Amino acid sequence: MEQVEELLQGSRRALARLISLVENNDPRKEEIMRQLFPYTGKAYLIGITGAPGAGKSSLVDRLLTGMRRSGFTVGVIAVDPTSPFTGGAILGDRIRMQEHALDSGIFIRSMGTRGSLGGISRAAREAVQVMDAFGKDIIIIETVGVGQSEIDIVKAADSTVVVLTPAGGDSVQTIKAGIMEIGDIFVVNKCDLPGAERTVAEVKLMLDLKEEPGWRPPVIPVMALRGEGVDELCNSLREHRDYLQRQGLLEARRRERAGRELGELVEFLVKSRVWDSIKTQISLDQFIEAIALRRRDPYSAARELLRQINFPH
Amino acid sequence: MEQVEELLQGSRRALARLISLVENNDPRKEEIMRQLFPYTGKAYLIGITGAPGAGKSSLVDRLLTGMRRSGFTVGVIAVDPTSPFTGGAILGDRIRMQEHALDSGIFIRSMGTRGSLGGISRAAREAVQVMDAFGKDIIIIETVGVGQSEIDIVKAADSTVVVLTPAGGDSVQTIKAGIMEIGDIFVVNKCDLPGAERTVAEVKLMLDLKEEPGWRPPVIPVMALRGEGVDELCNSLREHRDYLQRQGLLEARRRERAGRELGELVEFLVKSRVWDSIKTQISLDQFIEAIALRRRDPYSAARELLRQINFPH
Repeated sequence: MEQVEELLQGSRRALARLISLVENNDPRKEEIMRQLFPYTGKAYLIGITGAPGAGKSSLVDRLLTGMRRSGFTVGVIAVDPTSPFTGGAILGDRIRMQEHALDSGIFIRSMGTRGSLGGISRAAREAVQVMDAFGKDIIIIETVGVGQSEIDIVKAADSTVVVLTPAGGDSVQTIKAGIMEIGDIFVVNKCDLPGAERTVAEVKLMLDLKEEPGWRPPVIPVMALRGEGVDELCNSLREHRDYLQRQGLLEARRRERAGRELGELVEFLVKSRVWDSIKTQISLDQFIEAIALRRRDPYSAARELLRQINFPH
Repeated sequence: MEQVEELLQGSRRALARLISLVENNDPRKEEIMRQLFPYTGKAYLIGITGAPGAGKSSLVDRLLTGMRRSGFTVGVIAVDPTSPFTGGAILGDRIRMQEHALDSGIFIRSMGTRGSLGGISRAAREAVQVMDAFGKDIIIIETVGVGQSEIDIVKAADSTVVVLTPAGGDSVQTIKAGIMEIGDIFVVNKCDLPGAERTVAEVKLMLDLKEEPGWRPPVIPVMALRGEGVDELCNSLREHRDYLQRQGLLEARRRERAGRELGELVEFLVKSRVWDSIKTQISLDQFIEAIALRRRDPYSAARELLRQINFPH
């Protein structure tokens, strides 16, 4: 495919275009992903997650500056499932693009949840692959860490940074589902706010409770807006990468990821095929009607439906 | 099945036991759901969602008191995907149980995300069916409204209440993905806090922007801890139910729900079957290895895998 060749030759336009094709589940997507695959696997993937308003964007901007100074090219995928009312993703994109527009070593892409027909986590992971094949040294995946799909996205990273803010009156105990489990590095941003020290201490305490051997996630106070603590974060990221490499865990993580991706792809292909078959072979209405009227339970309806399209069930 | 009969005869023990079986994806689940199905469809389902700390639990407790006074029996399913570190779901459950322990007209069940192998939204919906068959007049599904799966849960409701709190310095614009779209009724809880009036006004403004004909979601200031505004909320819930019934929309919503459930069940059955076949017929390791070594792209690996287990793909 022409655009794949252009991408491999370094065309930013082809990069942008291919990510769009992937995000919109273009029919050529499978072919694109296949062609790009041999060129992937070189980038280092960093996941950055945290609640809305935690200051992830400012932090990423600072990280970009630091990484560029160290000579790395960087891709950013910002997953921002903002309400259609606010259009947050697009606005955020514009603001960011202005700042780094002149630096060809940086490519930033925002993704909303709309328009990603195959699910946001798949779309984000495939965008990562496209950027990886393009040749970015580091790819940052930034997500609002509130739901399972966002957690799935950062699971795809080599190193995951969880961004917290001082809890104010609240205790850190309100930290969301699974967030504590996925962090390789914790940042307490806006560390000039009251309660910052307590938050740092509480997070450390929670990490102590885990009592897991191996990597001990550092907890770093940061003031992203002024760039304070960002060097420490960069150092921790380097240390974590070195740790993973030294222990052979980078390979292990990537193998795990390959397994997860294979599994999801299998499910995706099967589901697509089921729906194609249903669409062309039968009408769902009669089944839905029967369920709605309590004439048939959903389980036997589903099995009968699969029987009619000759699907194993 | 014995426990199904006991449930239909009003045994709370059978109710608790059957919800556990469903939640744990017990092999007998399909049979249980089939047997219960004819007895479902009578309860009115209310979804209550909002960010952590918005005061949903206090609000639900107040609603319970009001509904019981009106003579309704009520079931509550509180989906609380809290970190294993905090064990929030279990703690919350205990506190609530104490308060309503002596009222046999109330049944409260908390669900974490752990242990729900078939996905939390399926588990919650099936628990709703069990409570419905048991004969509860009203079933409240309370979720932390932050992720797609939580939004899916409230989509299963007849009326959805979105609980907000005064935004303080922030604007309401940070309201999360899709939350504005799903609310039939908006509650601004903790309305004694500064900024409450502004939040109410902003939510009304955002709703005005929608300009959709039909039901206009009310925005109700509430102070759940003191019970203020709860009567208004009860009235709005009644009005919304009457509106849905008058317009024939209750039937429409339930038909939509039947369609969604059927679709999810079809996908679930197919996925289960695929994984069963994979487990018994082939080893994934070789595929994962080939992907990890970049010898084979995930798409062709997935297709080859499906070919080997004779699955349409």
